[in-house]
Amino acid sequence: MEKEPNEWGPKAWAHLSAVRAQSPLIQCITNYVSMDLVANTLLSAGASPAMLHTIEEIPDFTPHVRALYVNVGTLSANWLPSMKAAAQLASQLGKPWVLDPVAAGASGFRLNACLELVQLKPTVIRGNASEIIALSRASVGPTKGVDSSHESMDAMEAARCLAEASGAIVAVSGAVDIVTDGRRVVGAHNGVPMMQKITATGCSVTALIAAFVAVDPLHAFEATASALSVYGIAGEMGMSMAKGPASLRMHMIDCLHGLDQAALLSRTNITALS
Amino acid sequence: MEKEPNEWGPKAWAHLSAVRAQSPLIQCITNYVSMDLVANTLLSAGASPAMLHTIEEIPDFTPHVRALYVNVGTLSANWLPSMKAAAQLASQLGKPWVLDPVAAGASGFRLNACLELVQLKPTVIRGNASEIIALSRASVGPTKGVDSSHESMDAMEAARCLAEASGAIVAVSGAVDIVTDGRRVVGAHNGVPMMQKITATGCSVTALIAAFVAVDPLHAFEATASALSVYGIAGEMGMSMAKGPASLRMHMIDCLHGLDQAALLSRTNITALS
Amino acid sequence: MEKEPNEWGPKAWAHLSAVRAQSPLIQCITNYVSMDLVANTLLSAGASPAMLHTIEEIPDFTPHVRALYVNVGTLSANWLPSMKAAAQLASQLGKPWVLDPVAAGASGFRLNACLELVQLKPTVIRGNASEIIALSRASVGPTKGVDSSHESMDAMEAARCLAEASGAIVAVSGAVDIVTDGRRVVGAHNGVPMMQKITATGCSVTALIAAFVAVDPLHAFEATASALSVYGIAGEMGMSMAKGPASLRMHMIDCLHGLDQAALLSRTNITALS
Repeated sequence: MEKEPNEWGPKAWAHLSAVRAQSPLIQCITNYVSMDLVANTLLSAGASPAMLHTIEEIPDFTPHVRALYVNVGTLSANWLPSMKAAAQLASQLGKPWVLDPVAAGASGFRLNACLELVQLKPTVIRGNASEIIALSRASVGPTKGVDSSHESMDAMEAARCLAEASGAIVAVSGAVDIVTDGRRVVGAHNGVPMMQKITATGCSVTALIAAFVAVDPLHAFEATASALSVYGIAGEMGMSMAKGPASLRMHMIDCLHGLDQAALLSRTNITALS
Repeated sequence: MEKEPNEWGPKAWAHLSAVRAQSPLIQCITNYVSMDLVANTLLSAGASPAMLHTIEEIPDFTPHVRALYVNVGTLSANWLPSMKAAAQLASQLGKPWVLDPVAAGASGFRLNACLELVQLKPTVIRGNASEIIALSRASVGPTKGVDSSHESMDAMEAARCLAEASGAIVAVSGAVDIVTDGRRVVGAHNGVPMMQKITATGCSVTALIAAFVAVDPLHAFEATASALSVYGIAGEMGMSMAKGPASLRMHMIDCLHGLDQAALLSRTNITALS
Repeated sequence: MEKEPNEWGPKAWAHLSAVRAQSPLIQCITNYVSMDLVANTLLSAGASPAMLHTIEEIPDFTPHVRALYVNVGTLSANWLPSMKAAAQLASQLGKPWVLDPVAAGASGFRLNACLELVQLKPTVIRGNASEIIALSRASVGPTKGVDSSHESMDAMEAARCLAEASGAIVAVSGAVDIVTDGRRVVGAHNGVPMMQKITATGCSVTALIAAFVAVDPLHAFEATASALSVYGIAGEMGMSMAKGPASLRMHMIDCLHGLDQAALLSRTNITALS
């Protein structure tokens, strides 16, 4: 669990710098609650968000984006076909796309929708422990250890199985964020607990992952870990000025926008977990 | 109109403490404009919001929530069946549910939708004076005094009639917030005028009512008054730092998150009005 | 490009004062991402926003509004009929309505929708350079100069052509905001670059235009320039306190709410460009 500043810090800085330099266009089909924070997070990081979800527009628009972000938070039968069409087209065109399976286990309808989306080959899947466990169980059946009382260990095992079965990089947010490609596992140790008291921070970091993967699609594992760490660092720096969740939200976005190399290098805390 | 610190302050503190301790899951079917502030208000108070509105998910999900919040702000023919299905299920299961009849009188379509929802036995209805007057007139006909020039008195009488006819606790937001069960009437005197310059503050306090009623469903009258007062106190404390409506919004959420017993007890201002 | 403080400053102040005094009701059919900022911008300026988009409600509600705002940001086949019905009714009733053709060129579906809306005689159309160029080309064909490398000059010419063809006032946001009625052209030189790092600032200034036109419908050209300048001034004043895009967003709304005559008169910077 030691810091490895020499390896990951420069990688994370390279990813953030590339997003700032290239301003990749990211199509977001995300839930209503998160749209404001997702768009502002992407803008602050230097990316160009496009909230465009209508099925009639996907054939014209999706070919022009650098990455696609799909989030099922306020899923409905109206939106699901658009999500699938955009994901399918992104996959066909070799563009990275990232799935946030919000509340995957909340209903049969939602779990089925998430499974259908996983079939469309997301580059990255990011959720919290219960979401990834629900999705992994439904995809590949119960995993060793999932009945233990150690949720974070269960999540790591579930993430590994889901990654293997789906071919996606799988990230699990928590006290330590876990990233795995089914073989390698790293932990991103940045962030502060109060971020969980702000709605849509999970959605927003998944959007940031999409932007980072957009500029380094051949290294989605590294880009995912970088994005989780950078977002966590923005939260840490914002926390030093915050008086509660609403001011943290504001300072966090400001800090993401202003994050410089020295702060990023000194704070990036990603370690191998296996 | 004297303060009664000994009675209501401890009640409000007990409600807020219970929300923080139990983190009740609150299903919100609310308008697009309000989703961000509603979710952040609930999180700051210690509750767990779930913005889930799709009719296919209601049979699986609604049985797991502690309370339901329905807000018709951006009503559409697509969403109304979900609102009704969730409300009906909540009522059947004996779960509290709270209705915010935003702009009830804006159209015949909307007024009818609100009347249909009222038939499904909300535990609490909260609106502003014109909304409650419109709903009461449509439910039970014109009330004594509704043609007078004293809107707050009209609203009180309308609220009483609506409460009697519907069986719901009825709350009317205004310079003084009124709460009635058709018999008792109390006024919550907390809050500041600038809160009306922030969109969705009304929607958010109704969500907070849902959280408070979730932890004390047998005393919905008291929980409603407590929630109105606590939200108003957060506004008062936020106002001391605010430079305008946007900073008030931020400070208000921070203050709701950090509100301690001493501040709450000294500021709670709820009085009997009849 | 000299300041003309004597002409435009008092006009802008008169418009803002009228909005504050009259609190005009503005119906907004806008995209999901922008709803929060649009509503808060209108409230801070003194107007009354109503986010009401359902086709069943338009015949009852739209006759009561002072102006209509239509924004196609998160356009869908479900919403387009409402946009058209509301625009048509506003035009029939002689009420001003304002169009924001977000991402007009992003798809054939969207461009056709925008063209259909332009047929319904908007009072004002506001977009960025690429949106106005896309809409102008589709409406009236390529314009002189549109293949040059001077996008702002192209946009000015495209705006002029679109204004002539449509009968609308056309505004183009950019480093300098351009406003034209097809004959006169003015530039509003207020604002700061960081406003582009906040989602929905374009949507919000278009909403502000709707409020300004609502109180001076016979001078839509002047009201449009005033609104652009006032919004830019709020951004300039907010920038002096901001540490990044999220704090700018907050300070900007606070400053719009508190903007006084002296600051407005000294900062308004609108000049004739032709």
